[in-house]
Amino acid sequence: MASIPDSHPRKRSLESRQRIVDGCSMGLLADSAMIAHGRGEAFDYLLGERTTESAREAIRESAARLRKARSPVISVNGNTVVLAGDWAIRLAAVLGCPIEVNLYYRTPSRVKGLISLLEERRSKVAEECAPEGFEGLWEDSVQNVSLLGDSPNFKIEGLEGPRSNCTQEGIGEADTILVPLEDGDRCEALTNLGKEVIVVDLNPLSRSARMATVTIVDEVSRAFEEILSVLLNDPDNRPTEWDNSQSLRESLREIGGNFSE
Amino acid sequence: MASIPDSHPRKRSLESRQRIVDGCSMGLLADSAMIAHGRGEAFDYLLGERTTESAREAIRESAARLRKARSPVISVNGNTVVLAGDWAIRLAAVLGCPIEVNLYYRTPSRVKGLISLLEERRSKVAEECAPEGFEGLWEDSVQNVSLLGDSPNFKIEGLEGPRSNCTQEGIGEADTILVPLEDGDRCEALTNLGKEVIVVDLNPLSRSARMATVTIVDEVSRAFEEILSVLLNDPDNRPTEWDNSQSLRESLREIGGNFSE
Repeated sequence: MASIPDSHPRKRSLESRQRIVDGCSMGLLADSAMIAHGRGEAFDYLLGERTTESAREAIRESAARLRKARSPVISVNGNTVVLAGDWAIRLAAVLGCPIEVNLYYRTPSRVKGLISLLEERRSKVAEECAPEGFEGLWEDSVQNVSLLGDSPNFKIEGLEGPRSNCTQEGIGEADTILVPLEDGDRCEALTNLGKEVIVVDLNPLSRSARMATVTIVDEVSRAFEEILSVLLNDPDNRPTEWDNSQSLRESLREIGGNFSE
Repeated sequence: MASIPDSHPRKRSLESRQRIVDGCSMGLLADSAMIAHGRGEAFDYLLGERTTESAREAIRESAARLRKARSPVISVNGNTVVLAGDWAIRLAAVLGCPIEVNLYYRTPSRVKGLISLLEERRSKVAEECAPEGFEGLWEDSVQNVSLLGDSPNFKIEGLEGPRSNCTQEGIGEADTILVPLEDGDRCEALTNLGKEVIVVDLNPLSRSARMATVTIVDEVSRAFEEILSVLLNDPDNRPTEWDNSQSLRESLREIGGNFSE
């Protein structure tokens, strides 16, 4: 790809698009991945391609709940790995939790390919300097991140077919799941099992946005980066009585503001 | 693809998505086609997947200008052919104008593939009953539709590289161009040449939407179907003093309405 100058106002968006195109060429993503990404681009455009005030509050709430969780997990699909895999690994290292590859259109070769990509990125992230505010051995914390999903041995109750498959040590046992770009049915099934479901979704009207415990209406790599920053730099951040419908209404109001003259 | 029941509220949208996925598998569309389609899906979702009042007015204006044009042309890219090729052929048959395949990411094999697909569809459309209100020999009118773009012999002034290429008998000589899903630069260059440019674009904030003479903020197959209906059933429809900025503001207001509580 031709390199995009740093000064380009939409550089990050164009780089993300290229990551999705490349992920498709490598066979890591389903047919629908590019269409889903395009939908996300449109919603992000309407948000002004920035983390809004209401998203920032949802991020603080999510960070507090993830920190407090007994056994959190980060559930990722292909688009999340491609767009924000490094951030997922950093988050998992700080939380000491596993990452589970969980695909709507599951094929063994795509799951394997995504886990290999995450393994590769995990080695890269382990070589980085520890992020500001991190205490402990960064390299060890990163290398200890488990990458699950290859051998599903558990079913999500209330779902049919391959999309019910997950691992017991990951989603099966988790009390709190950070699951960006999820489908509505699975989000509902996980909530019905009594789990806290934290969704990252650019469409505040989507079914997963409405079914989640906490919905972060933001682009996934921006959201992960910001969750990490709150986890590391705001130790006093605690869960609140969260009103997710109210938060979604705020997001809609922020988007709607872009349509007023 | 699994067939979608007629009762499904989003049947048409899901069928369109499948057409784009199939078009990609057949090598007819560029990498970015699915992403562009996804963006369109998001905007259409915000419109309520229906032709809004302001779009209906823009359609009436467009039909009047196309009817009055000395030499109109319909310029199509891959997504337009796949989503609304049959409607483009019907429109061209009624207007007695050519269709030109004109691609942003032009490759000879994609142009040839799209023209072959249009030839195939032209034979199918020629076998249909004439649409209501059509006078004349339908089969002949359809078979006479020229499909241009294979051998570009003209340059659009003000553009660089392959995207400046077009045919003289099509875009080169046209006074009025119906060009859905266009890029902003080309739309601007065509307008600067003194041509009337009628754009169909689901994003009322896009550069092509803002550069066009008349912008129809609607899904391309719905817009084409409705232009045809106006052409055939409303002979008294005449061009007006069109205020395109005002029309775009109306579209924004209609979308914004979906964000208010």
